[in-house]
Amino acid sequence: MSADETVDFDDITAAASRIGGRVHHTPVFTSRSLDAASGNQLFFKAENLQRCGAFKARGACNAIARLPAEAASRGVITDSSGNHGQALAWAAAQAGLACRVVMPADAPAVKQAAVAAYGAQIHLCTPTLAGRAEAVARLRAQMGACYIPPFNHPDIIAGQGTVALELLQAHPDLDALVLPVGGGGLMAGCAIAGQGMRPGLRVFAAEPTGANDAARSKAAGRHLPPDREHRSVAGGLLVGLGSLNWPSLRDRVEAVLEVEDAETLAAMRLLASRMKLVVEPSGAIGLAAVLSGRLPLRGARIGVVLSGGNVDLAQLGADAP
Amino acid sequence: MSADETVDFDDITAAASRIGGRVHHTPVFTSRSLDAASGNQLFFKAENLQRCGAFKARGACNAIARLPAEAASRGVITDSSGNHGQALAWAAAQAGLACRVVMPADAPAVKQAAVAAYGAQIHLCTPTLAGRAEAVARLRAQMGACYIPPFNHPDIIAGQGTVALELLQAHPDLDALVLPVGGGGLMAGCAIAGQGMRPGLRVFAAEPTGANDAARSKAAGRHLPPDREHRSVAGGLLVGLGSLNWPSLRDRVEAVLEVEDAETLAAMRLLASRMKLVVEPSGAIGLAAVLSGRLPLRGARIGVVLSGGNVDLAQLGADAP
Repeated sequence: MSADETVDFDDITAAASRIGGRVHHTPVFTSRSLDAASGNQLFFKAENLQRCGAFKARGACNAIARLPAEAASRGVITDSSGNHGQALAWAAAQAGLACRVVMPADAPAVKQAAVAAYGAQIHLCTPTLAGRAEAVARLRAQMGACYIPPFNHPDIIAGQGTVALELLQAHPDLDALVLPVGGGGLMAGCAIAGQGMRPGLRVFAAEPTGANDAARSKAAGRHLPPDREHRSVAGGLLVGLGSLNWPSLRDRVEAVLEVEDAETLAAMRLLASRMKLVVEPSGAIGLAAVLSGRLPLRGARIGVVLSGGNVDLAQLGADAP
Repeated sequence: MSADETVDFDDITAAASRIGGRVHHTPVFTSRSLDAASGNQLFFKAENLQRCGAFKARGACNAIARLPAEAASRGVITDSSGNHGQALAWAAAQAGLACRVVMPADAPAVKQAAVAAYGAQIHLCTPTLAGRAEAVARLRAQMGACYIPPFNHPDIIAGQGTVALELLQAHPDLDALVLPVGGGGLMAGCAIAGQGMRPGLRVFAAEPTGANDAARSKAAGRHLPPDREHRSVAGGLLVGLGSLNWPSLRDRVEAVLEVEDAETLAAMRLLASRMKLVVEPSGAIGLAAVLSGRLPLRGARIGVVLSGGNVDLAQLGADAP
């Protein structure tokens, strides 16, 4: 455990026991044609087939299971309109807890519908950071509901780490992991789990060029905030790296690969055409990094986490080769 | 075994042993939301994740493994430009045999490229039935190569039956199977395997309205040829039912459901959006039949074969909800 990490390997194995029967143990797929294209042997952990279509179900489920009964009775709240919002709504419903999700008033109807379909109550707010924070604070005061953030929380990180735990259990002789990095919950949890299972495992992160605060932080040797508005097709990776996840990036990740959106979209379409898997851009960025040839790996056994599959099908088909 | 079937249960278990290490044992997926939408419990056999992207790899592999050494040395030939052509090219390459595929001169470049990528030699012919038959006959005479048809052959039928064998081994208590029907190799093999594993298993076939010779044959009680040019988005199901597969349709299949193309496309998009699986129209028709409400099943445990995933991504995304 790195000196200032808030999660250790045992937290992740405990999370795995806790959420075992509730989330899917997702399959690992291989592809001869993508192996040939990459010059490595790739093992794809298909979290696009996870409940709610993304790994986020793991962290949400773990965080909710860890709530003290008294806190749980007041329900949970979050302000993510993406995969974490859906995952928390789902996990709360499974546990019989109330869930409130703060969303900007201009959030797409389809995202509102997805959260509502899992039984959560939506609170629309002014579509600004201030409006969002104000709405969350008001609801927390009113309800006493526990706020569950999307990535900067030990229980979330431990839950996400179970992805690598399962992958290394199935393939204990991997040489490396390639993980998408946005807020860093998946990256940190999987780096801790992976190196806990296999000391010396090489860990790489993949990040959009247009949201490269993790790469900049790694280069600077200190945790830097985003230096401009993040832009990328990888909607799940637009957030800044969480403070709790910085130590894992600093101490466990060998390099952060910056990936162009065009590379990510091409990888997404390869996953659909060759492997018949619907993967969202944030989930395809790891393969894009591998295929870019910029990783210092040849003939290696590489675990690649396909983190989610919640993509507009029109985007999947647009400009397809 | 029906009196005039050419394949029995033992042929299928033998095929399973023969092809076991060569083709994928594909996973079975479930979906709570599609269960709720259908009012049944669905078990999806994901042959879209099979080698070459379709169940056809099974029959091709079995047929090639069954060739006497002397015949094998002269190679194999077929005239399918679809999934069977690719599957035979792949299976021949695996076995180190030469493969020739006759294709109409106007076959899409992408299909030619797919067959060529598996190492087969393409022979372009005049794009008419006569031109095709002439090219096949000429090549067979020249090379002495063995012709392996796409569905009307016992070894092909036995190979395709291994799909249901695996499905029933994983879920022995299914009440029903829903199978796409075109030439009928998959339908016949799976009906024989399924009812061999579980006597009394109810078997339904799903067929495009625009290619309904199986439904018409079933209604008439005798094997009828297509009565017009078949048209459907389900390109794999445009052929007429094979004579060897008619006895299984007659004796084992409870009903043939006719499905509109719009229903098939909607099911294809549901499989992509809810289950994150890329499935071609021919592979989605079984789910379309289940969701149509026209099957006499409620609260039943139904195996649905997703037969393949070779679809143009633009088609997957077009008009997506």
